[in-house]
Amino acid sequence: MLKLFRRASNKVGLPPGTLIHIGEEKVERAKVTIIDYGEAQFQEKEVETVEECFPFKDKPTVTWINIDGIHEAEIMEKIGTHFGIHPLILEDIMNTGQRPKMEDFEDYLFVVVKMIYYDDKDTEIRAEQVSLILGSNFVITFQEREGDLFDPVRERIRRGKGRIRRMKADYLAYALLDTIVDHYFVILEKLGERIEDMEEELIANPTPGTLQTIHTLKRELIFLRKSIWPLREVISVLERGESSLIDESTGIYLRDVYDHTIQVIDTIETFRDMVSGMLDIYLSSISNRMNEVMKVLTIIATIFIPLTFIAGVYGMNFKYIPELEWHWGYGAALIVMGIIAFGMVLYFRRKRWL
Amino acid sequence: MLKLFRRASNKVGLPPGTLIHIGEEKVERAKVTIIDYGEAQFQEKEVETVEECFPFKDKPTVTWINIDGIHEAEIMEKIGTHFGIHPLILEDIMNTGQRPKMEDFEDYLFVVVKMIYYDDKDTEIRAEQVSLILGSNFVITFQEREGDLFDPVRERIRRGKGRIRRMKADYLAYALLDTIVDHYFVILEKLGERIEDMEEELIANPTPGTLQTIHTLKRELIFLRKSIWPLREVISVLERGESSLIDESTGIYLRDVYDHTIQVIDTIETFRDMVSGMLDIYLSSISNRMNEVMKVLTIIATIFIPLTFIAGVYGMNFKYIPELEWHWGYGAALIVMGIIAFGMVLYFRRKRWL
Amino acid sequence: MLKLFRRASNKVGLPPGTLIHIGEEKVERAKVTIIDYGEAQFQEKEVETVEECFPFKDKPTVTWINIDGIHEAEIMEKIGTHFGIHPLILEDIMNTGQRPKMEDFEDYLFVVVKMIYYDDKDTEIRAEQVSLILGSNFVITFQEREGDLFDPVRERIRRGKGRIRRMKADYLAYALLDTIVDHYFVILEKLGERIEDMEEELIANPTPGTLQTIHTLKRELIFLRKSIWPLREVISVLERGESSLIDESTGIYLRDVYDHTIQVIDTIETFRDMVSGMLDIYLSSISNRMNEVMKVLTIIATIFIPLTFIAGVYGMNFKYIPELEWHWGYGAALIVMGIIAFGMVLYFRRKRWL
Amino acid sequence: MLKLFRRASNKVGLPPGTLIHIGEEKVERAKVTIIDYGEAQFQEKEVETVEECFPFKDKPTVTWINIDGIHEAEIMEKIGTHFGIHPLILEDIMNTGQRPKMEDFEDYLFVVVKMIYYDDKDTEIRAEQVSLILGSNFVITFQEREGDLFDPVRERIRRGKGRIRRMKADYLAYALLDTIVDHYFVILEKLGERIEDMEEELIANPTPGTLQTIHTLKRELIFLRKSIWPLREVISVLERGESSLIDESTGIYLRDVYDHTIQVIDTIETFRDMVSGMLDIYLSSISNRMNEVMKVLTIIATIFIPLTFIAGVYGMNFKYIPELEWHWGYGAALIVMGIIAFGMVLYFRRKRWL
Amino acid sequence: MLKLFRRASNKVGLPPGTLIHIGEEKVERAKVTIIDYGEAQFQEKEVETVEECFPFKDKPTVTWINIDGIHEAEIMEKIGTHFGIHPLILEDIMNTGQRPKMEDFEDYLFVVVKMIYYDDKDTEIRAEQVSLILGSNFVITFQEREGDLFDPVRERIRRGKGRIRRMKADYLAYALLDTIVDHYFVILEKLGERIEDMEEELIANPTPGTLQTIHTLKRELIFLRKSIWPLREVISVLERGESSLIDESTGIYLRDVYDHTIQVIDTIETFRDMVSGMLDIYLSSISNRMNEVMKVLTIIATIFIPLTFIAGVYGMNFKYIPELEWHWGYGAALIVMGIIAFGMVLYFRRKRWL
Repeated sequence: MLKLFRRASNKVGLPPGTLIHIGEEKVERAKVTIIDYGEAQFQEKEVETVEECFPFKDKPTVTWINIDGIHEAEIMEKIGTHFGIHPLILEDIMNTGQRPKMEDFEDYLFVVVKMIYYDDKDTEIRAEQVSLILGSNFVITFQEREGDLFDPVRERIRRGKGRIRRMKADYLAYALLDTIVDHYFVILEKLGERIEDMEEELIANPTPGTLQTIHTLKRELIFLRKSIWPLREVISVLERGESSLIDESTGIYLRDVYDHTIQVIDTIETFRDMVSGMLDIYLSSISNRMNEVMKVLTIIATIFIPLTFIAGVYGMNFKYIPELEWHWGYGAALIVMGIIAFGMVLYFRRKRWL
Repeated sequence: MLKLFRRASNKVGLPPGTLIHIGEEKVERAKVTIIDYGEAQFQEKEVETVEECFPFKDKPTVTWINIDGIHEAEIMEKIGTHFGIHPLILEDIMNTGQRPKMEDFEDYLFVVVKMIYYDDKDTEIRAEQVSLILGSNFVITFQEREGDLFDPVRERIRRGKGRIRRMKADYLAYALLDTIVDHYFVILEKLGERIEDMEEELIANPTPGTLQTIHTLKRELIFLRKSIWPLREVISVLERGESSLIDESTGIYLRDVYDHTIQVIDTIETFRDMVSGMLDIYLSSISNRMNEVMKVLTIIATIFIPLTFIAGVYGMNFKYIPELEWHWGYGAALIVMGIIAFGMVLYFRRKRWL
Repeated sequence: MLKLFRRASNKVGLPPGTLIHIGEEKVERAKVTIIDYGEAQFQEKEVETVEECFPFKDKPTVTWINIDGIHEAEIMEKIGTHFGIHPLILEDIMNTGQRPKMEDFEDYLFVVVKMIYYDDKDTEIRAEQVSLILGSNFVITFQEREGDLFDPVRERIRRGKGRIRRMKADYLAYALLDTIVDHYFVILEKLGERIEDMEEELIANPTPGTLQTIHTLKRELIFLRKSIWPLREVISVLERGESSLIDESTGIYLRDVYDHTIQVIDTIETFRDMVSGMLDIYLSSISNRMNEVMKVLTIIATIFIPLTFIAGVYGMNFKYIPELEWHWGYGAALIVMGIIAFGMVLYFRRKRWL
Repeated sequence: MLKLFRRASNKVGLPPGTLIHIGEEKVERAKVTIIDYGEAQFQEKEVETVEECFPFKDKPTVTWINIDGIHEAEIMEKIGTHFGIHPLILEDIMNTGQRPKMEDFEDYLFVVVKMIYYDDKDTEIRAEQVSLILGSNFVITFQEREGDLFDPVRERIRRGKGRIRRMKADYLAYALLDTIVDHYFVILEKLGERIEDMEEELIANPTPGTLQTIHTLKRELIFLRKSIWPLREVISVLERGESSLIDESTGIYLRDVYDHTIQVIDTIETFRDMVSGMLDIYLSSISNRMNEVMKVLTIIATIFIPLTFIAGVYGMNFKYIPELEWHWGYGAALIVMGIIAFGMVLYFRRKRWL
Repeated sequence: MLKLFRRASNKVGLPPGTLIHIGEEKVERAKVTIIDYGEAQFQEKEVETVEECFPFKDKPTVTWINIDGIHEAEIMEKIGTHFGIHPLILEDIMNTGQRPKMEDFEDYLFVVVKMIYYDDKDTEIRAEQVSLILGSNFVITFQEREGDLFDPVRERIRRGKGRIRRMKADYLAYALLDTIVDHYFVILEKLGERIEDMEEELIANPTPGTLQTIHTLKRELIFLRKSIWPLREVISVLERGESSLIDESTGIYLRDVYDHTIQVIDTIETFRDMVSGMLDIYLSSISNRMNEVMKVLTIIATIFIPLTFIAGVYGMNFKYIPELEWHWGYGAALIVMGIIAFGMVLYFRRKRWL
């Protein structure tokens, strides 16, 4: 089940800037990889110690340092000290319960977003917090676990596809945000399919399971909304281009991401509308079915109870009719009763009550 | 059923500006037609190759290039290059999942709207994305399929009716937007009729089918709202006349379109209010009917169950009354039972339970 | 039933400014009346041809031209040409589906409002669109049919009561708007009475008819809201006094109208709150009654069904009790049964189930 | 029952500024009292004719003229003329259907608020409109009836308690407003108690009367909200100190009143939330109880109906068991039946169905 | 139960600035403690008389005066006089019904917040009002009772941990606010757990107790929202740094608290969404269960009532079958009846009806 809230109680009372990891520990050891590129050059390596990243800070090429695993306070502190990141920001990176936000410290930008994807079996939504530090010629990304959605970006850098190798660090940051936002559409697509399936089920044959599905969908939509809604503000601020770290030429690309974010939020709202409408339909169709059940009961009872009374009063015992041999009569009665019982069972089956 | 969301998952990870068509492919080959006119001249032709459009770019007359079919990346690219359209805009044109929006690139404006109309049999709402590029002396429109709502505009150009031949390209753009917005009223009119029909049905004889209709209406209203709501902003920006491409004299016409858009949105909201009120009425009338069913059951049971008990205790068998010949008694009982059963059936029919 | 939407589909595709009447044709021929007055003079007449109005345009006195019937394109066009009214405004006047709005063309103001009143038998709400052109020394009003709420204003002009004869055309426009807004209170008063009546009914004896009444009230409130809500903006803009056509001294009067409009809107919202609360109460009381019905059924069934079973098992036939003569026993049983049946009928009547 | 709307229909069509009283006439004759004070002096008197107030207008001391009863047009007019109050304001004072508002006419301020209190028996909420004119050295208050909440203020003036005797007229106006707002807390306290009582009742034993109470509470909250909500704006404008009539030193006191108003509005919203939540709880617990009723019915019916059938089929009449004397058998059966019936009655009583 | 409203009725009519305690009296005597520190020095003491605090006002070191117990007007007045606090502020401090707010009096800031925590047994939410006066080199805190969440801050000051000893009074104020806001997460964590537990219960086995739990959760969320929502504004104003009392370097820390507050509010909204969704699920599952109950009843009744009728009409008494000895027959019947009754009881148990 999606966690809508991450524990933070073990942090209460500590001085600000204390580096404590909040969230599940998803990898054993943090893994640090570096991609360094310019229009003509490219290198990629996985480093053993975090100190190996430091020389890249002052190189004119664009450097992308990616860190999978954010629970090791020591690594965080070293990076923080070398790249001049404020302790409160490091604290934010290690706390996976952040809502998407952006902070502008003249010499670097800090962005937190939620990367959302389906697990390998495509059955469950997973969310991972991605923090991004954009400096003048480097991007540092922090992820909760290994494996991410950024392979197409890496591929474009490696092969020099598109304009990425010719652009600066801000374009890399854009490319990463764009990939994350693009992936929201994949999630929405799956959700859309499930909503449509459920709509058909709702009309054809609502069951208590339908209710459970509606509830799950609602919860997932609440989760998505919470994770994506603040992104609108984040990208809007980036796009307005008040930071000197973001080139004017990147502005139009960020505007594109902004449009996509609005589209995603719009679709989430539409889905919420639809799902909450479904609950009403569900309730109405339960009432409808109950109505039908009651009608059958009432019709049967209303016809047979008075008849039984009259039969009782008149003492209408066919055994007194001498022309009827008792055994034939009982045989016939048993057959009639069998047919009625069998017919009723068939009828209830067709109505899906049994 | 109306698609509330268009698949975009096959695009994830590609560099920005990659031209990939998202949506159904509704025509086999793109069809390009050109209408070129001035106060005194007029020509109209369908071209074979997209290159035939290029000379019109620099002619002083107004040129309207219409492209039916947006899935051919090659055509899009050629037009983009010649008319100087940004690749991200071309990407937006080919992605039919856009929400209405407007972008201002000093030398051209880009507008996306949804053209909504009933299919030929008037049973289903269809939506098509129309993208519009407004240059200083040309308008390029991109549509998903052949056939559109613009024939009256074409006719007005051909015959020189109204002021269209005397005006510039911005007026043509206005005329096209106006036609699309005007058509929303046709949709609303049909919806209004259906809502009124349903209201009468709701009062006269609510059935489970009513519920289905309410659900369909709700969905259509969600769809319309999603398609039209952002248009308000789009036209408001156009009308404020910040772009040099839009003449002050066209402003008052755009204001008219703006008023219409507000009216459409207003009516959609009113319809939503009414439809959601109907669901409440529906639920209440189901409860009312159930109440009635239960009353009948309770009255019958409450009267006859104690009577049966008393009859049982007293053993009130009329066969012991010697004055009654058994055959007359049974005959009378059978007739009474028949009349009761028949009366019940009639009663339930009148109540519409059977 | 109140129309919440006016057909406009026959207008689609026509050039802007085409004068086509949208709405019911409520009078056969348009009727034009003129009231012309100054502090010392006064004349009133009904004219045969619209051209008779033209001389009044340049007279220094205040002229009020009232036109009942807006479906004659020819008359509209003549007035439009002579008084310099934009064709799009004429189009708006003839389309009775407008929402209240105000447009400022330096040399005249255009205002559309909804005049709402009960019909002669006080049973149905009627709405009429009133368009008002305010020039420097004239006011032109367009109404859908003869008969309006303006007679008190006419009377005040005729008799020189109040300050109206001493003021300019803007005060006349204010007086007309004020009359329309004042009349909304009459509508609200009637609605308030109906809501209070219904509340009492809801508590004393809810019936399916109550549901119908709630629905009707809801619809009327939706209609009123739609018709009046935008007026707030209209009068607020007028009152802010940005137009040179409106004297500063009229400002305080318009502010008064503004306050009234807010009060009307406020009351509509309160009524909506109350009516939607009533639906909940209604649903709850249906459930309550059903509960009661079910209790009676359950109590009766729970007591008598086991008793019947036991009686059946014991074969408790009083006929075996030799001391009882059969005829006395049966007589007593019949009387007991009759009393029970009669009592039940009385009980159900008191509960209003029968 | 609280009137949510005051009749105003008899005023339609009259010229603006016509002084007509709208509302109930709550006193026979208007009563005018004057309190005049400075740091050193104090006088208090009830005057016979309104003209006696006039000399106080130009005295340097602070004068508080209080008028109980607003239906006498003549008195209103005299005061209006002497103190220079605009006729539209006089009209507003006499119309008790105002919403709280503030108007600033450079040389005086006009404030309307609702004074709300419980009647003597503490069972019903009463609302009275209080209009307040603040001039440079006088305050005029208009009330609907005799008796108000201002006695503590009068006492403070008489005894020179607090700083009131040292301050100007604006402080007096503040003190009056403060008293009215403070009294809202008394109303909220009572409402809070009733809500808490009802919550307990809802859980312990919901009855149809609970529904009625919820409805009444809802209505009172709608009424309070309508009466108090606009006050926020009123006091906020006063406090911002744009009027020269309000001393800067009074600002902090008005800010205090503003905070209280926000607190009152906040609490009303919280109460609304709670009351509307209660309706849901109520509906759910009705459903719960119905569920229970149905279970009892179903269990009894499901066990005994088949048994009765089997008993009937087997003809299980114990009378055929020769060892049982009939009279013992019947005696035992009668006792068993009596015990069952008695037990059922007890059970239903405990469930509160009887 | 959480009080959503504090009595204030005994205060009505008193002059502003009258010091009256509103709320429960939670300690017998107010307790005053002082912590005074600089980078190099530190002292901590509990004082007997409030006058002992006065010398600290002008010492250059940072002084934190903490007062537990706010009902003693005398102490409040002495502090107010010495530290120059406005009487209205003292009144606010003593009234525990405040909503969070901030007021800026050039030489000191006044902040009210709600400290929320679980009681020792972790079963009930408790709220305490904390008022904070920030001067240039002192912080005065007022609490309702002894015992608070500030021990970690005290510890950090004592041990010189973190930067607190090097910073000024504004940082101390920040540290206290931060501690309070951090503790909201602990409350949310507990609430989150309860919501998740309830969700599982809702699906597995909804009972009337579930309804009670939903109601309690709803109430707690309303309470939290009311207590925390205004804090957003408070901290936002502090953070914008318009007061000279707040150092620019403290700004970034306050921004961090602001982010946390937003996160808390966000989570409360999410929880509200979830809890209100649960009520719908609950209602639906009650309806579902009722449906099931009715189906069982209907199936049983529909099969056996006609059979009983037929058996009655045919007089199908097996005693007439001579081959069956009566005692075997009755024995078999009794066994069959016992098995049916036993089976039914088991079935109802499994369905959790018994």
